[in-house]
Order: sequence, then structure tokens, then C-alpha cells
Amino acid sequence: MQSDILALGADNRAALRRLTEALDLPRLQPGWVWLAGAGPGDPGLASLHTLAAIAEADVILTDALLNPKLLELRRPDAKVVDAGKRGGRPSPRQEAISRQLVHYARRGLRVLRLKGGDPLVFGRGGEEALALVRAGIPFRIVPGVTAGIGGLAYAGIPATHRDTNQALTFITGSGANGRAPELDWQAIAKGSPTIVLYMARKHAGVIAAKLMAAGRAGSEPAAIVSNASLESQTTRVTTLDRLGELAAEADAPAIIVIGENVRLAQGLDWLGAALFGKKLDPDPLGRDGLNEAV
Amino acid sequence: MQSDILALGADNRAALRRLTEALDLPRLQPGWVWLAGAGPGDPGLASLHTLAAIAEADVILTDALLNPKLLELRRPDAKVVDAGKRGGRPSPRQEAISRQLVHYARRGLRVLRLKGGDPLVFGRGGEEALALVRAGIPFRIVPGVTAGIGGLAYAGIPATHRDTNQALTFITGSGANGRAPELDWQAIAKGSPTIVLYMARKHAGVIAAKLMAAGRAGSEPAAIVSNASLESQTTRVTTLDRLGELAAEADAPAIIVIGENVRLAQGLDWLGAALFGKKLDPDPLGRDGLNEAV
Repeated sequence: MQSDILALGADNRAALRRLTEALDLPRLQPGWVWLAGAGPGDPGLASLHTLAAIAEADVILTDALLNPKLLELRRPDAKVVDAGKRGGRPSPRQEAISRQLVHYARRGLRVLRLKGGDPLVFGRGGEEALALVRAGIPFRIVPGVTAGIGGLAYAGIPATHRDTNQALTFITGSGANGRAPELDWQAIAKGSPTIVLYMARKHAGVIAAKLMAAGRAGSEPAAIVSNASLESQTTRVTTLDRLGELAAEADAPAIIVIGENVRLAQGLDWLGAALFGKKLDPDPLGRDGLNEAV
Repeated sequence: MQSDILALGADNRAALRRLTEALDLPRLQPGWVWLAGAGPGDPGLASLHTLAAIAEADVILTDALLNPKLLELRRPDAKVVDAGKRGGRPSPRQEAISRQLVHYARRGLRVLRLKGGDPLVFGRGGEEALALVRAGIPFRIVPGVTAGIGGLAYAGIPATHRDTNQALTFITGSGANGRAPELDWQAIAKGSPTIVLYMARKHAGVIAAKLMAAGRAGSEPAAIVSNASLESQTTRVTTLDRLGELAAEADAPAIIVIGENVRLAQGLDWLGAALFGKKLDPDPLGRDGLNEAV
């Protein structure tokens, strides 16, 4: 059985090699590090660059947010190192991760640093890359689909929509030393109709209070999407004044969105329609009614 | 020769089929529409869902921002419809595009609406999806890497970095009727250290002036990245007070970023290092020097 699985794996890797050649893509080379994003969870959202790098790598340093299914594409002799940082739990220090990347690259290995989401959106990819620059290691950054866009899409919530927002603000819910981020909350509240919070289960209540103090209505729609794009995805639709309470109970990882576009999920929850036959509302913002009234 | 090419194409499609089966992914079905993003340009950033849908589709409605190389993966009998909207040039109206999606799906075809970037980031994907809901057509949304994150990464500019920004704001440069967007620019200027503008070549000067009037320094770094992630990519690094002038001359499509993280390109321009041997600065923000001074 094991040899069958390995043979199938070899075919999968050959398929990836064929596609990278068909599209003239560069390959992960010995002594290089690729810092790659794998998207929010659904393995189908991983890019060809990322998938091909998984199949080529000698060593893969993974992230706590990575879907392990993707690792089935690795070579049988590839080494997988769990280098995930987990809020509140013991986890490798950032410097130790960077040191490992340098260590393996200096040994002439093909090194893949594989993160959930995008490596440069609240993912510390820039810091890891600068450590490689200091050590003189060549690297490539492979962007991924970020949860604040792609994860929300799986809950039927568009990051932008013409009728709701011409601006969109992403905020990390975990600032320096794990505190709530220090921002001009008056300005944040007034600047962007839609606000997406990353890693904010703990501080969502504080942030919501600051936004309400700055004039955002407590009745404004908000949603918490846990395990976005995975089979275990859950969405809690709520309002700004109840956000903190529900966020504290939500499973990690969670992405949080505040704004009128949350209401669009009534029309755009394609996953709920496909899996559970949910009836979609073609006029989720009630614009047709509004137009009649005008 | 032609038959060789077709045979190679069949092998590429078989490779994609194998990978979707290995990862248990759903396939584009007859009568369905997938609204998919292809990423900013580099075909290696397209997701497996998107690539597999290209290989399965009976009809593909493309976008002006799409890399045509990806279409080489389509079936030889697939119909390609140019449904790209181009600012300032004659282009299909949005309603006409939505009508075509419904038309082909009702004929029982596998329909792929393929857009550059992400379909839900200033891409009108939500509107097309609501048209499908009105018509009772089943659909799936396939997120893509958006230029404001992934395109900037190819210029070595991280969308976020711990030392520069805990918040990130995306703004469309093209509001209703092609005017500059109507936002609270005081709040935008104070709220987010990093601002990314989409489709803003025309209005970048107006937007920069509003940001400076609200207190952002004219000397603040800004960059314009044209054809991000393609071989034709160009990056112009400038300052906020000169942004409008340079943006007006830049090639389309262009993504614009304003903020201190532009300076990180001195350290993180991995593409410039790989292609042109550019020397990277391991301390692009001058923090080491700062620490010594403290």
C-alpha cells in the first residue's frame, strides 16, 4: 500500500512539474528559500508556485495555520519542520525560525517556508526575508490568498462591493506584545466603511468599543468566520455591540469583518447554497425596494 | 505541429485533473458559473481551482487584466469571450457581461468568468454573482491573489510589516461615474499608515493632494507598480508630492502604494536581486542605526 501511495505521489509531483514547464515558471533551486503563502485553508486556493515548491522542497517549515493536506504533495524524503507560532501557546521564537531557514539554505537545500494566507499580510514574512538578506541567502516571495479577502468570500461576504465600500481597511488584532493595536480609532472608524480584523478574537471587544465610541453604530453588521474555507468553517453574523462577546467564543483561526457588506452574505453565500441548499436573496441590500421608494 | 500542441495541452489538462482528484477538489460542473480570480499576472500565482476551471470550462469570459498565457490550458474546443471592461475605452457593459454568464449557464455549459486579481476586490464580482442569483444559476467564487498585496510583493514592498503598519487601507481610485472616490480623506490620512490605491493613475494627484491637506507629508514614500508580477513590471519609487505627475505617465494596470513600507523595497526586492543582481540592504528602515543611537 505504502508503495502505491508513494507512486501516486510521484505522479502528482510529475503533474506539477509538467504544469510549471508548460507555463515557463521558475523552480525552487538548491540553496534558495521560498517564502510562500498557501491561502486561507482550501487547498484549491494554493497557487501553482506554492504547490510546485511543496513538491520540490528538501525541507518545509510550516505554519500553525497551514492545511496539512497540502503536505501530501511533498517528496517522501522531504523534511517537515513545524515552525508555527501560536498565540498563547509555546511556539518557536521568530529568530529561531529565521535561523533555521538560513541553516538549511546554507547546506544547499531547497527550503520552503510555507504559511497560511499571504506571507506579507500580518505574517512576519518581511522579517524572515530580511534575515535571509543579512545572511546572503537568495529568496523568492510567493504571495497567497489572504483570509481577509478569500476567507470572507467563502462566507459570501465580498471584501468590496460598489454599493457598500470604496475603501477597505485591514487591521491586526494583535499588536506589539500581544496588546490591542495602537491606532487612531476615530480616524479608522470614519475612514473606511469596511474593517477586517486579523487575529482579533481576544481584542475584538476592545476594538468594537473604540469604534462605537468614535461613532460607529452598535447595530452595524459584523461577522466572525472561523476556519474560513475549510470544511469546519463556521460563520457567526452579529452586530458591532455584540462582537466582542461572540469573538471570544469563536474557534481559531478567525477572521472578523465589520460593515454593511456583511449583509451581502444573504445573497452571496454560494457555499451555503451548494452544501445546504440555502436560498439566496438576489437583493440582499434591499436596493430594489429603495429604488421603488425613491 | 498543431496536433503535438493539442496533445501537450491534453497532458496539461490531465495533470490538472490528477491534482484536483489528489486533493479532493470540486470540479466546474455543467450549468454552473465559477467567478474566479487569476492573480495579478504571473501565471504561477493562479490557484489550482482557477487552473483546473480553465481546463474544464466550455466557455471562458475573460477580463482585460488577464494574462493570456493562462488560456493555453483551455480545451481546444472551449470558447473564449473577451468581456473585459477597460477604463476610457469601449467595453462591454456590466449588464451585458452578466447576461452572457446567465445565457451560457442556461445552455448547460461549464462557464468560467476569469478576472485578473481577486473578483471581489474592486472587481464587480459581487454584482455578477447577484445577477446569477436572480437567474437561479449555481455559482462558486474562487478568490485570487490581489494586486494590492501580491503585486506589491513583486516590487519588494510588503503590504504590512511590524515596524511600519498595523493597518492597511485599500481604496479604489475610480469611484462612481469614473470620478475620484468620495471618502473622509482626513480620516483616511490619519487612520492607516499604508494606503494602496487601485486603478488610480488618473486621480492619484487629487488623492495625494487630499492626503497632504489632511497632514500626510509630501516627502512620504510612494510607489507605482505597473504590470505587477509580469516580465514587463516597472516600479517607480517617488514621494507623495510627486505621485500624481508620475502616476499619470505610468503604464496600466498600475497599483499605487503610499507609506513607509515602500522603503522596505531596498531590502526586499527579491525580483530585482534575482534578475539584475540588485544588492539588497538588510536594514532598509535604518533601525539598526536607530537602536545604536538610542
